[in-house]
Amino acid sequence: MDEQVKVGPWRRKSRETVYDNPWISLEHHEVLAPTGNDGIYGVVRFKNRAIGVLPISEDGDVWLVGQHRYPLDRYSWELPEGGGPLTEEPLNAAKRELLEETGVRAEHWSELAVFDISNSVTDEVAVCYLAWGLTDGDTQQADPTEDLDVRKVKFKTLLEMVMNGDITDSLTIIMVLKAHALALRGDAPQPISQILAAE
Amino acid sequence: MDEQVKVGPWRRKSRETVYDNPWISLEHHEVLAPTGNDGIYGVVRFKNRAIGVLPISEDGDVWLVGQHRYPLDRYSWELPEGGGPLTEEPLNAAKRELLEETGVRAEHWSELAVFDISNSVTDEVAVCYLAWGLTDGDTQQADPTEDLDVRKVKFKTLLEMVMNGDITDSLTIIMVLKAHALALRGDAPQPISQILAAE
Repeated sequence: MDEQVKVGPWRRKSRETVYDNPWISLEHHEVLAPTGNDGIYGVVRFKNRAIGVLPISEDGDVWLVGQHRYPLDRYSWELPEGGGPLTEEPLNAAKRELLEETGVRAEHWSELAVFDISNSVTDEVAVCYLAWGLTDGDTQQADPTEDLDVRKVKFKTLLEMVMNGDITDSLTIIMVLKAHALALRGDAPQPISQILAAE
Repeated sequence: MDEQVKVGPWRRKSRETVYDNPWISLEHHEVLAPTGNDGIYGVVRFKNRAIGVLPISEDGDVWLVGQHRYPLDRYSWELPEGGGPLTEEPLNAAKRELLEETGVRAEHWSELAVFDISNSVTDEVAVCYLAWGLTDGDTQQADPTEDLDVRKVKFKTLLEMVMNGDITDSLTIIMVLKAHALALRGDAPQPISQILAAE
């Protein structure tokens, strides 16, 4: 049993780790809510940052990765994504994930978005990048549990897939819409700005 | 011990619920990955849909809700959000959350985005709405554990807060960027289209 610990206007009265695997742990907390009421909180802690990459070629191609998402029991097409340990520079993780999942290397990288994925229950943070100046190698170096499909589409097509709801992955939606908005206001990196404006 | 169950190209060999509270449960699964390798999967199941609302007035005001997010131990300004039981019509939950958190009622509602929040570990789905034709009541009917700040900002200001990274909540980012993109292409509801274009 811990002492009461301040968490902003909350107070944590106790904490117990009830589950732990290589990717997440789950803690059960007894708390005093900001209103003074007794309560509980199940907190899912992530051991990795979520990493996302929007790799875009001079021809306007982007690489999508398809896989069956086990928690949803549903197939999902997404931009290349993965996890990077909290102790690792996120850009390194992004380069590794892009190469592993698509065989692509990029000369230029620009941070696109940093955000909290599901803040009511988890502490999962995402760091996402634009990548351009691409070299498409032929070797996809997959994770031993991953079975990925890869396809190229035009950025304009991907934007339509986001707008019409065909793409349901939150990271992909944020990367595509933010890159598009940056380009429309002239704030995207110059070599890819016109493509991302998708007009 | 269950029989092996197909989950797309995965096989579930066993399943055990290791944690359960009113909002989530956590299941530990033994699996065969699509590659044939043995593995485990910790799956966080949500008992609610995440609900988000972008309430916009004729004057271009939107309502933001601020709170200390316990899992992150960080303060966050967001559009009105909450949870709605999976058995409840999400639009009802959206109307309730908007009223509870801000005291605002809306005459018109339009579905804005449906997406998967964190699909590597959870089955959490978000349903988000645009709301307009607003009546601003004076009674905020808070949840007994919630201590919320509420403030009005112009949509244009909120868009800047999203673009410069001041807003870090994934649902808010998606609602703002998608509403803006819809308006720029002339696909937002007519009465609020010019405001959401934010030009």
